[in-house]
Amino acid sequence: MGQKPITFIRQVLACCAYPALLQSMAIPADVKKRAEEILHDCGGRSVGAYTPSPGIECIRKHCAEYITRRDGIPTDYENIVISAGTTEGIRNVLKLFVNTQGNRKVGIMIPIPQYPLYSATLDEFGLGQVRYYLDEDNMWGLNIQECERALNESKGKYDTKAICVINPGNPAGQVLTRRNIEEIIRFAHKHNLVILADEVYQDNIFDEKSKFFSFKKVMLDMGGEYKDQELVSFYSVSKGYMGECGLRAGYIEFMNIDPEVYQMFNKMISAKLCASALGQAALDCAVNPPKPGEPSYDLWYKEKTGILKSMAERARMVKEAYGALEGIECNPVQGAMYAFAKINLPQKAIEEAKRRNVQPDFFYGMEMLEATGICTVPGSGFGQKEGTYHFRTTILPQTNLMKEMLERFKPFHDKFMKKYK
Amino acid sequence: MGQKPITFIRQVLACCAYPALLQSMAIPADVKKRAEEILHDCGGRSVGAYTPSPGIECIRKHCAEYITRRDGIPTDYENIVISAGTTEGIRNVLKLFVNTQGNRKVGIMIPIPQYPLYSATLDEFGLGQVRYYLDEDNMWGLNIQECERALNESKGKYDTKAICVINPGNPAGQVLTRRNIEEIIRFAHKHNLVILADEVYQDNIFDEKSKFFSFKKVMLDMGGEYKDQELVSFYSVSKGYMGECGLRAGYIEFMNIDPEVYQMFNKMISAKLCASALGQAALDCAVNPPKPGEPSYDLWYKEKTGILKSMAERARMVKEAYGALEGIECNPVQGAMYAFAKINLPQKAIEEAKRRNVQPDFFYGMEMLEATGICTVPGSGFGQKEGTYHFRTTILPQTNLMKEMLERFKPFHDKFMKKYK
Repeated sequence: MGQKPITFIRQVLACCAYPALLQSMAIPADVKKRAEEILHDCGGRSVGAYTPSPGIECIRKHCAEYITRRDGIPTDYENIVISAGTTEGIRNVLKLFVNTQGNRKVGIMIPIPQYPLYSATLDEFGLGQVRYYLDEDNMWGLNIQECERALNESKGKYDTKAICVINPGNPAGQVLTRRNIEEIIRFAHKHNLVILADEVYQDNIFDEKSKFFSFKKVMLDMGGEYKDQELVSFYSVSKGYMGECGLRAGYIEFMNIDPEVYQMFNKMISAKLCASALGQAALDCAVNPPKPGEPSYDLWYKEKTGILKSMAERARMVKEAYGALEGIECNPVQGAMYAFAKINLPQKAIEEAKRRNVQPDFFYGMEMLEATGICTVPGSGFGQKEGTYHFRTTILPQTNLMKEMLERFKPFHDKFMKKYK
Repeated sequence: MGQKPITFIRQVLACCAYPALLQSMAIPADVKKRAEEILHDCGGRSVGAYTPSPGIECIRKHCAEYITRRDGIPTDYENIVISAGTTEGIRNVLKLFVNTQGNRKVGIMIPIPQYPLYSATLDEFGLGQVRYYLDEDNMWGLNIQECERALNESKGKYDTKAICVINPGNPAGQVLTRRNIEEIIRFAHKHNLVILADEVYQDNIFDEKSKFFSFKKVMLDMGGEYKDQELVSFYSVSKGYMGECGLRAGYIEFMNIDPEVYQMFNKMISAKLCASALGQAALDCAVNPPKPGEPSYDLWYKEKTGILKSMAERARMVKEAYGALEGIECNPVQGAMYAFAKINLPQKAIEEAKRRNVQPDFFYGMEMLEATGICTVPGSGFGQKEGTYHFRTTILPQTNLMKEMLERFKPFHDKFMKKYK
């Protein structure tokens, strides 16, 4: 999408891959130092060796230090497991809930709309989807009555064991308030549910009134019985300002998980050997970036803030552009990388879609793609309240392309709405 | 283990990670050309972008060309899927056999001894292990009567659908003869079994009388009904002369697989997004190394042959050293990276192990580790004929270390045997 990679990350990767570069005058001293530190913890000082299954030790320690800095809470690196991306991490954690001996299927609560990795993996693993609907009228927040309803209705069918929360949200771009997070923690604790907190967009906060709070911090701040709540949190180099999806790395933090379960988790991942050593090196740079005064700091800071500022601008652009269109309602993009806009499709368009045997929002999206070349994802791919229709766009295209996109979007939309009025 | 990485691979990785190096005078022209070719097929010309789930297109094409050169058989790159290492690849393929609707459990034939990924994954996926024993007296070859026995005995319990073959073998270091491969193909065809050919050690042939034949080549040479045999083959950058385990990449080739099954496989892996783009770049260098006349060729050739020659020397060393010891019998290490030696443990040692509540070969291995610092893997970890005991050693330590290891081994072994005689 045209986002430039962070130079520091790429220089460290190059040195780790080809250590002859450690002699190069063109590579900053802190890059070399970082690469040497990582290589020191690799077998034979090489990224070609298998790493320990939970990850390279100094990188796990840097992840723990990152969390400590973020939340002001001491963190034990032994609770950190590096994964080959958060997709892999979430799948491995969901596997823990599979119970082939039980007489009832295990259920997992997932938000609707949700990133479809969850629904697909639950189906693949034979786990039940317990769907709770996000509250579009309240900035896509979690309504605890709705969570109670979903859990309650699932009782005949499933033994529900966990609740997944995506914050900041994919696809809805919401950032949960601290109060909302507290409610969710109380809900999970009351019903003895593990919280799976997908927090991969924690660096992507665009709304000035929003702030990212980790479930861990809120839980420990609440204290008392809540500080023993079982929690698993996910982080990824694919998101934030890094955008290094192709390198496949993230970390998982486990809190208050039964030691026997955690041991079983580590046994399970050991059969899969390890995540890419170079992906892990990129994760190291993300959780432990250059510090003020170090040679790479200024460039790193400029690149990072440039990317995040530009994303924030595009988040505003998208919201404004959609807000000005008749028949579209869109919450502000508070965080993550997406707008999830509601389209009030005319009855005739819904009928036309039915005639073509496709979902109405899929029909709208395909018409848009064919008329303008703009690719969106229909809301039906993420789930939505019955009778409502949405589409997801990403704010990732660079500003000029984004402008052009929005300029092409408007005439298509007006024409479509007019045609099916 | 001290094996030096191949310079060409690491230079290409460095350029892909940090394309500013494409301007460097210190990087050979063919390295730059290769990195540019790979980046051209990456989204936004960056290894930071998700790649297509089956892999970067030009790399899949290079895999197909590699197979064509190896076997003299045209190969369609659309049948190639790049995986995040062969562990991931084998797991994904085994998943295809899970049948939750059937009234009988699906069985998969696996060799004994076997690399325990197979047994662990079958257990995890709820698939049945149909164990056939390799013939230690015939260089760990496959005895078809033994395969018939295993399949036949499984019939009451399982609906057996596939046979896994590891060639060259892990842990036994055997290289199957062409005639043996033909027999296996006839057996699989007769019983309508998919062949899963774990051929990751195809470059590691040390015995002068042995030669690697791919199942694909033998099958197509046999022709007739056999050319439609269902076959899946695996290749990895972790083995061969590359030894790039930490980069996590390999490929899978599918042959004669039902198009609907293959489509489902591709749908399934799309939920996991993709393998590391840098791992894929390393795979590219392995399947498409420098050619004579190119700037990197001489160094690449020297490094490659140096590694393989040294491994061959160590394979001989191990066999000779073990052969000279009383109470140890060891087939020659024809290929792969392992010796799997039989120990004729004295009855008293077996009793002592029982007293300690451990397997006899585990007891022997632990005593060795404590007395000498030498780490081996007991045969019971791979499976073995009842009443026989083995240990696996790798030939990966560099020659000097290997010599030292064997010098330390002998006095321990002699003392152990004497103690429990």
